[in-house]
Amino acid sequence: MVVVSGPSGVGKSSFVQELLGADLDLKYSVSATTRARRAHEKEGVDYFYLSREEFRRRVEAGEFVEWAEVHGELYGTLRSETERWLKARKNVLLDIDVQGGRAVRKVYPDGVFIFVLPPSLASLEERLRGRGTDSEERIRLRLENALREIALVGEYDYAVVNDDLKTAYRQVASIIAAETCRASRRLKSALG
Amino acid sequence: MVVVSGPSGVGKSSFVQELLGADLDLKYSVSATTRARRAHEKEGVDYFYLSREEFRRRVEAGEFVEWAEVHGELYGTLRSETERWLKARKNVLLDIDVQGGRAVRKVYPDGVFIFVLPPSLASLEERLRGRGTDSEERIRLRLENALREIALVGEYDYAVVNDDLKTAYRQVASIIAAETCRASRRLKSALG
Repeated sequence: MVVVSGPSGVGKSSFVQELLGADLDLKYSVSATTRARRAHEKEGVDYFYLSREEFRRRVEAGEFVEWAEVHGELYGTLRSETERWLKARKNVLLDIDVQGGRAVRKVYPDGVFIFVLPPSLASLEERLRGRGTDSEERIRLRLENALREIALVGEYDYAVVNDDLKTAYRQVASIIAAETCRASRRLKSALG
Repeated sequence: MVVVSGPSGVGKSSFVQELLGADLDLKYSVSATTRARRAHEKEGVDYFYLSREEFRRRVEAGEFVEWAEVHGELYGTLRSETERWLKARKNVLLDIDVQGGRAVRKVYPDGVFIFVLPPSLASLEERLRGRGTDSEERIRLRLENALREIALVGEYDYAVVNDDLKTAYRQVASIIAAETCRASRRLKSALG
């Protein structure tokens, strides 16, 4: 279980795409959501699209590893989705926020938690501004939220600076290779 | 601080040579000993050669990170030697036994502790026999000692199987790269 979190504007989406495209054999955990499917999106690829009632029912049934409400819509990680890959002994990649990461840590304490950092705060602000679509107030708000998230990096096992995509990718590859050598993991798998 | 331990017959010497020869920029911590210098050995390269009195004096003065008596001779790691490299912000490689590793962990809790495992117990026995110089009783004894050491792998952070030297080397390179990304280390160095 590899969990990747990072503040808005850190370039996490391209980073996650890079990780999935490479030869790390990482399986992406598809989230469930109540928001409407967009034209280019596919059920079970981008999201599992659930009605609000169905989502709530599954929350009650304990089927979610974590879930949250964002801008009025529900998003969450279904245990069936993560277990599907873990049972096949694959590494699962979860792309979630810090709150979600905390919930996942409780269910999967053996997970590898990676926080994506911007090269600098200036570069983060530049990226948030670069979109050119947001008001000054909105940019301020996003920057504040980003700082609040970055302050929680200590809750993560690793911090990877997303300066150069290839370098960041190599670091994650090293982290996964190293975690495979963890004495505690080897003992666990040796003892069945 | 990178500490490498492993049982006799696991091929640790060639493994350590491989690590030092490569581009990991690891500095070898030279041990001190009371045993006589051999013809091909150099002071300060193979060992620091100390008289028994000098060694004892330095033990009393707390100058050793760890020390032990082996076959009647004293061997130990001088704090001045490890600190020399750590102050220069270099990674120091220590090649010591499990007992020594425990002592080092107390002084350097942030160290990275790697245990070298044989591909199998059969291969370990084969290697111990392969030397062809030891009596059956001595081989039994070494094998028993090796098993006793292997049982302590859980005290280490990582376990690397020394099957193929290049693969084992790459794993250690990954471990060092990953440890550099540890959130706790990044926070520590960011906070000075």
